[in-house]
Formats: sequence, C-alpha cells, structure tokens
Amino acid sequence: MSQRTLLLLSQDNAHYERLLKAANLPHLRILRADNQSDAEKLIGEAHILMAEPARAKPLLPKANKLSWFQSTYAGVDVLLDPDSRRDYQLTNVRGIFGPLMSEYVFGHLLSLMRQIPLYREQQKQRLWQSHPYQGLKGRTMLILGTGSIGQHIAHTGKHFGMKVLGISRSGRERAGFDQVYQLPALNKMLAQADVIVSVLPATRDTRHLFNAARFEHCKPGAILFNVGRGSAVHSGDLLTALRTGKLAMAVLDVFEQEPLPADSPLWGQPNLIVTPHNSAYSFPDDVAQIFVRNYIRFIDGQPLDGKIDFDKGY
Amino acid sequence: MSQRTLLLLSQDNAHYERLLKAANLPHLRILRADNQSDAEKLIGEAHILMAEPARAKPLLPKANKLSWFQSTYAGVDVLLDPDSRRDYQLTNVRGIFGPLMSEYVFGHLLSLMRQIPLYREQQKQRLWQSHPYQGLKGRTMLILGTGSIGQHIAHTGKHFGMKVLGISRSGRERAGFDQVYQLPALNKMLAQADVIVSVLPATRDTRHLFNAARFEHCKPGAILFNVGRGSAVHSGDLLTALRTGKLAMAVLDVFEQEPLPADSPLWGQPNLIVTPHNSAYSFPDDVAQIFVRNYIRFIDGQPLDGKIDFDKGY
Repeated sequence: MSQRTLLLLSQDNAHYERLLKAANLPHLRILRADNQSDAEKLIGEAHILMAEPARAKPLLPKANKLSWFQSTYAGVDVLLDPDSRRDYQLTNVRGIFGPLMSEYVFGHLLSLMRQIPLYREQQKQRLWQSHPYQGLKGRTMLILGTGSIGQHIAHTGKHFGMKVLGISRSGRERAGFDQVYQLPALNKMLAQADVIVSVLPATRDTRHLFNAARFEHCKPGAILFNVGRGSAVHSGDLLTALRTGKLAMAVLDVFEQEPLPADSPLWGQPNLIVTPHNSAYSFPDDVAQIFVRNYIRFIDGQPLDGKIDFDKGY
Repeated sequence: MSQRTLLLLSQDNAHYERLLKAANLPHLRILRADNQSDAEKLIGEAHILMAEPARAKPLLPKANKLSWFQSTYAGVDVLLDPDSRRDYQLTNVRGIFGPLMSEYVFGHLLSLMRQIPLYREQQKQRLWQSHPYQGLKGRTMLILGTGSIGQHIAHTGKHFGMKVLGISRSGRERAGFDQVYQLPALNKMLAQADVIVSVLPATRDTRHLFNAARFEHCKPGAILFNVGRGSAVHSGDLLTALRTGKLAMAVLDVFEQEPLPADSPLWGQPNLIVTPHNSAYSFPDDVAQIFVRNYIRFIDGQPLDGKIDFDKGY
C-alpha cells in the first residue's frame, strides 16, 4: 500500500504530531503547517487534512490530492457553502462534547436557579439572608437536537428529575428523552418548557429558528440556552424578547458573528449571559483518538465516523 | 381509639394545617401555635409535635403528654444535649434533601470549574476571551456521610464521570460510591480528593474533624464543601488553610455559629463562598407527606421513619 500524507493545520499541531507519531499508524507521513506560508507550501501534498475548518478553508482550492478532511471541531459549517468543494470526505468530531456541554448548561442553570451571584453580592455585604428557590425536579427541559450532545444533556436533566422533551428532524425516540417531536411541534412544546436548549447545527432549516414569532410561544419565565450555532437565534428579536419579558433569561455561547463585536448590544443586556464559544473544547487527546480510529477505517476502505452529509449540513 | 393532639410549631404552620386537614388523618386533632404565647398555652396538650427543633426546645419541659416529635428539619442536634429529655420518639425529615443538596454542590462546583464569575466580569468589559478549563470527568470526589444525601450527591458525581469515595462510620458499600471507608482512612483518602463534601451531622465524633492537622493531608487545589453541620470544620484552621493554599477553595453553607456574625473573618476570605444555610430547604409538601406516612405508622404502633438514635446523634 502506498504512503498517505497527513497535513496538520491547527493550534495544537505539536500535540497532535506527538500523539499520532506515538500511535505508529501504518503508511502515514505526518506534516505540520504551523503558519500560513508553510500551509501554502504543503497543502498540495496532503491526502488527509486534520485541521480547524476556518484555517483550512482558504487552502482547499489548492488541495489537489485531498481525499479526507478530519475537522478538529464539531462545527464545520464554514465548509458547507453551496459553492464549496464536495469531492472529499469530511468528518467532524462527535461524542466528546456531550459531557462538557452538559456541565456548561447545568453549571449556568443551577447557578441561576440557586441565585449564586446574589449570594456572592450578599457575602460582600456580610448579609445572612435566604431567598426562596425551587429545585429542578419536575421542571421541563426542551432540547433542540437529539444527537450525542443532546442525549447527554437529556440524561443530566433526567438525573436532576426533570421532564425532558426533544425536537429533531426525524422525531425518533432517543435515550434520555421522555418524548421527541419533529419541528412542526416546536411552538406547542415551547409553551411547556421551563428551560430550552439549542444544540442545533447551522443549516438552512435552523437559521433564525428563534425569532420574534417564536418567542411569542415561550412560557413566561423560560430560560434559553444556545450552545449549538449562533445562526439559530435572531439576535435583535432575542433582545426584544428579553427586554419585554417574553423570555426571562438567555445564556449564549455562540453568536451570529464571532467574536461578538464589542459594540453589540448583547453584551450589556442584564438578563443575558455571554460566554466566548467555549461551552465545550476539543481536547487534543480526544480528537487524536478519533483520528486514529478513523484512519484505520480509512485505509480499510470502511465508512468513517462523524461523516458530514454535505446536503443535510451535519 | 382515643384522639391524639398534634401541635404545629413552625414558620409554615398555615401550610401544614391545610395539607394535614386535607389528608383526613384518623383520630387527629390539629392545633397551631403561631406565636410564643400560644405555644406555651398549648404545649401541655400535645401528644405529637411537628416543629422546628430550635423553636420547640424551650417548650419541651412543659410537654407533659409528648410521645412523638416530628422535626420539620434534618438537623436536630439542638435536641440532643446529654441532659435533654429522651423519653419521646424523635424523627427528622430524610430522603428529601439529597436532590437539593446535590444541586447546591454541583451548581457551585461547576460554577467554579467553568469560571462563571470570571466570564461575568469579562462580559461587563465586553471582553471575548476564553480560558483553559477541565471537566469533572476523572476527578475524585470524597463524600463524608453516606446516608441518603451523600448517596444522592454520589450518584450525581458518577453521572458527571467522577470517581466517588465515601467515609462512613461502618464503611459499608453504598449505591453510587466506588468505595466506602471508615474514618481512620480519612487522611489517606484526602490525599486523592479533588472535591471534598461533608454532609456529616453534629456529633461528638464529627466535631472539628477538619482542623489544621487534617488540612495538611488535602491535595493541593482541593475544594471543600460543608453542607452538613458547621461544627465539623474548625473555622480558624480553615481560614489558615485557605490563606496558605493547603486548600484552594471552600464553599460553606453551615457554620459553628448561625447566622454567621457580621464580624466573622470568613465573610471576607476571597477563596471562600458563604451561603446562609439554605443548600436544602424543607418544602412543606414534602414534610407533610413524611408526617402523614409516619402518623399511620404511629397509630399502628410500627417503627417510625427517620427515627433519631439519641446516643448516636442521628
């Protein structure tokens, strides 16, 4: 079998090189491009790319030998424009983000439910004063997206005694969910949801799914999380919903434009929490392990894990 | 069968009266004492007390007909002085605090791990900047006390992929724990624990269990939670441990003196979180349900749930 060339194009190149060399993968030559000029020099040799999508995108037209692109991120939407190349296999990382995203969602949710910031302020004033609260038990969580991340968040919700509903394209039953519905049921489900969590990818169908008309259906007091893609939420309409009380609170890790511009009114909205797209993180050890498993499949001609359907967009 | 008189002595009297009347318990006469003078007038008639321990304590010498005291709280240590009455059955509420305490512990823990206060500050400055973090997976939690609260916290820890160790009087295996040890193993276990959670009651054996000598055994970077009783932690030694870095962080819901006095140095310690003894709360609906079940047992002459052993202290 002939040798394959892998080009590494990520901020964790050194780490990946060490891990992959240690794995002794057969017939694999590993190259690193740590800067733009190296990348342009080496891209023509690459049969395989292991890269951050945005970093690799401008180089794709010159990747003449490319047959497989392993994204080091979950989000690959920058590679899915209708006029982009589709003559290679694109895989993303899946299955490793569920626990971290669940920690993010429940860390923020419990911090809000249990008024942690309020007690922090009271501590500064040396004030011993308790305020009423309710637990998560019996509350309803609606999760948009029932893949591995959605399922993990659902299991955590069930652990805390919540009722967990899901929305997916197929409406198929999934582990951790009490019930899964298709998109047309969304408005009806929103009326029941105390907590809404979007883990949706960026596709044509999910763009601005949360807009002014949608927020009309939310239960008063509801909290919205977006840990999927920013495009699922219309920022202007969200601000109005937060200002008028259609929605009690939003916790956003993703935005239509990232980094969120300093002049965005989202930063200053009191009932909105902004975090810099870090609800989950691709730990290099996990990503390298996914690559190793996929490489064995690749040289065996087997279907790759995490393969993106260019039409569906995920 | 003769009638029994129940005297309600709590801040939720009206709520309890409504729930218990609706339960139509046989042979039960329900009296309410909403203030001190009513309480002194009525205490002599009570066969049964349903009360907050501290509120009932001064009245006990006059409770001539008392045969059963259902505490509305978990903590009953004020009733356990060696020279207090022991000629009645004392029961506390159990089994309802696990979920709330687990929400408290993991709300604070995830808020710390995911640096929620830091991102809150950055949001005020409109600063988009991510910082490294680690998940809970693979970390070790040591829980002191393996009863229903400890078990619930243990299950949550397992859900988040933690290794969960326990310390109990018996060292008996318990659901949710990878391993349970007896007290003499504490120092050795502390050396492994990233997170320490005390749910211990106030007894002679638990008093100042966490003192200067103990903190010497903690793993650098460890976080200590106390959601049991304040007496388990020596406050002065804790402050020293926090100042010298023997311990990275403490989250305390209970204190040797409550309310925590305004001049306590604990309030101002930066790596210490103070909350006003509200990690769990006796929701009247839950407490009333426990009373109803126990009342049926009481009139049938069966053993009561949650019965306190005056010698053991829990």
